[in-house]
Amino acid sequence: MSQLIDIGKRAKKASMDIAALDIGLRNKALEQIAAAITENSAYILEQNEKDLVNAKENGMSTSMQDRLRLTRERILGIAEGVRKVIQLDDPLGEITSMKTRPNGLRIGAKRVPLGVIGIIYEARPNVTPDAAVLCLKAGNAVILRGGKEAIHSNIALANTMRNALKSLSLNPDMIQLIEDVSRETAHEMMRLNQYIDVLIPRGGAGLIRTVVETASIPVIQTGIGNCHIYVDKSADLKMAVNILYNAKCSRPSVCNAAESLLVHKDIAKEFLPLAKARLDEKKVELRGCERTAQLLPGIIPATEDDYYAEYNDYIMSVKVVDTIDQAIEHINQYNTKHSDAIVTSDYFAAQKFLDLVDSAAVYVNASTRFTDGYEFGFGAEIGISTQKLHARGPMGLKELTTIKYVIYGNGQIRE
Amino acid sequence: MSQLIDIGKRAKKASMDIAALDIGLRNKALEQIAAAITENSAYILEQNEKDLVNAKENGMSTSMQDRLRLTRERILGIAEGVRKVIQLDDPLGEITSMKTRPNGLRIGAKRVPLGVIGIIYEARPNVTPDAAVLCLKAGNAVILRGGKEAIHSNIALANTMRNALKSLSLNPDMIQLIEDVSRETAHEMMRLNQYIDVLIPRGGAGLIRTVVETASIPVIQTGIGNCHIYVDKSADLKMAVNILYNAKCSRPSVCNAAESLLVHKDIAKEFLPLAKARLDEKKVELRGCERTAQLLPGIIPATEDDYYAEYNDYIMSVKVVDTIDQAIEHINQYNTKHSDAIVTSDYFAAQKFLDLVDSAAVYVNASTRFTDGYEFGFGAEIGISTQKLHARGPMGLKELTTIKYVIYGNGQIRE
Repeated sequence: MSQLIDIGKRAKKASMDIAALDIGLRNKALEQIAAAITENSAYILEQNEKDLVNAKENGMSTSMQDRLRLTRERILGIAEGVRKVIQLDDPLGEITSMKTRPNGLRIGAKRVPLGVIGIIYEARPNVTPDAAVLCLKAGNAVILRGGKEAIHSNIALANTMRNALKSLSLNPDMIQLIEDVSRETAHEMMRLNQYIDVLIPRGGAGLIRTVVETASIPVIQTGIGNCHIYVDKSADLKMAVNILYNAKCSRPSVCNAAESLLVHKDIAKEFLPLAKARLDEKKVELRGCERTAQLLPGIIPATEDDYYAEYNDYIMSVKVVDTIDQAIEHINQYNTKHSDAIVTSDYFAAQKFLDLVDSAAVYVNASTRFTDGYEFGFGAEIGISTQKLHARGPMGLKELTTIKYVIYGNGQIRE
Repeated sequence: MSQLIDIGKRAKKASMDIAALDIGLRNKALEQIAAAITENSAYILEQNEKDLVNAKENGMSTSMQDRLRLTRERILGIAEGVRKVIQLDDPLGEITSMKTRPNGLRIGAKRVPLGVIGIIYEARPNVTPDAAVLCLKAGNAVILRGGKEAIHSNIALANTMRNALKSLSLNPDMIQLIEDVSRETAHEMMRLNQYIDVLIPRGGAGLIRTVVETASIPVIQTGIGNCHIYVDKSADLKMAVNILYNAKCSRPSVCNAAESLLVHKDIAKEFLPLAKARLDEKKVELRGCERTAQLLPGIIPATEDDYYAEYNDYIMSVKVVDTIDQAIEHINQYNTKHSDAIVTSDYFAAQKFLDLVDSAAVYVNASTRFTDGYEFGFGAEIGISTQKLHARGPMGLKELTTIKYVIYGNGQIRE
């Protein structure tokens, strides 16, 4: 039996065990995990140091090293995060829309765990506890497969959490880490339909694409954001500049940052110089269409690829459009169905944009940076779905559950 | 450009067009389709006859020929079905849980179409209008890919529907049929992520497996049912016999028919002869465990494969279990997560079964045959999901939709 099938079987068994735990016991497990992470911080840091030494030897960039690095403070932050998850309401058990059918059958939809969730991620070791804890809170077993760069940190974190479960006489296989970080094992995991109910990849566009193309397990695609700001002819230009600057510059490396600016032709002459002046504060490189170049002489011409790009950097594509319809058409062609915003004072323009832009989150007069589980009031976030099945936009605890129909009869048979 | 990419682009465009239609116009399109199908019945029957002639030449079984056959009556039934869909409420537009965040942002989840739905099916031409009409009602464009056995019927039906759309000056590409029924085209369709939002396969286990293993587009797995009846020690045995007979014999070829019987050891001696006597009416072949064989001498021994089998026939596997826990464990190992039932008079046994059996529909004291969109009161059904993402159990119009977050601001930026 391959190691992965063994992991799958254990996870399936553990998913039954955790599904039977009431919210008190699930929260107690999380308490124990938070305490264990704090207590074991020296051991976790020691293992993280091994990863950092390897990273330096392998010439990892300093920004990547920063993502990989744990500190005493960051570990305390992780434990604090676990305690916040404990405070959240139980997403399980509610039976909605229980109805009595004419034949007397009572049929209701009960919220239940998904079962076994697979998480595939890259070099951020904090995903290990963050994802595991959300899966457990929602009554699921989890199989974690992190990047090889963080393997020592991940093993330390996973062992710490598993020992915490053991200390409560709970099945430690509710959390399992795949320690063999070969590509073959990852591919095998993505096709383990018999044991894994859903795969959630967390990482860059390359990882997401590989998972979508390889997996036979249902996947929730997350986190690729080519977000747009469209400045309508009726926009309050000062508001538009503020929203643009915030969406582009407040944290350019994240998926809800804006990558592309569309401007209505009637206000382009007035707005573009204002926009450029503000974006110049962060030396944002603009790449524009011909009409943009006429108004902002000397800027780099935008190619077709620029309009598709998620730069994650201080770069932005710009296009002048004739109408709101053209803006919407452009967005629906080039966006990644993440987050897009219109700045407008026109009621009908606002409604049209909300109706016709095909994205997880469509904004009127606000920054795209708000697409986030915490900002949406979910209290937690496992990722931001950019597909349309099951979950769309920020995913909280509810998105880690499903329903089953429970049916109460008294001998009904079908004619 | 491949033909399929062209179809995909047209579908994407058409999905925008139909998303912009209000419910009045969508229903008007369905009215026109119902009328056109009735008016064109002679043409449709003539084309269906070509498929039937080919089927006979190719030695298709008579039961398969029956699935392929259209009659004047069946065509009127299809048109009648379309009119029933018109009566259903619009699944689109509702904004749920609109909340105002502390920063003043108003965030709500609006129900919107999925976009482009791909349907892959086999030799039943009635799927062509049934699936197309449900997709349209829910505001989606549809790409249909039926079996080659029904290609003439499908082309006739698709052309009829497309002409109906054209006659209202609507974009006919809201409904497209892939006329090239090669395996290569089907595989290309399953990986057309840029243009298709979700694939719903409808057919036998082989088709479903191929789609799950091949597709990179999100798939909703449907319709494979290895359903169980567990007769608890406290069961009303007369009720149990009735439910068993109904679940096994009322229509053995469908996915919600029972395939496996589990019996508590304390009542096996009394119950099994009663069950056999009733199932003998339809000459059901029983394949049992050793303890079953002791009580029903001469029956065929069950193999491991029998417990996994979806017979779709007058065959049933049987097993005597020591406890309800053993029954639940058996079900969770061998079932297909479709529908399973307990017959019991014990309150706690009923609750335990409902809580722990991992299926789309879990029954107490009723036949599994009720797992059906119409029986559940949905008014329509596109299939029965046996996976846990997005939809579980019978899928009606709502399951052909998704949400998007609409956010109303007045200049908010993120700190």
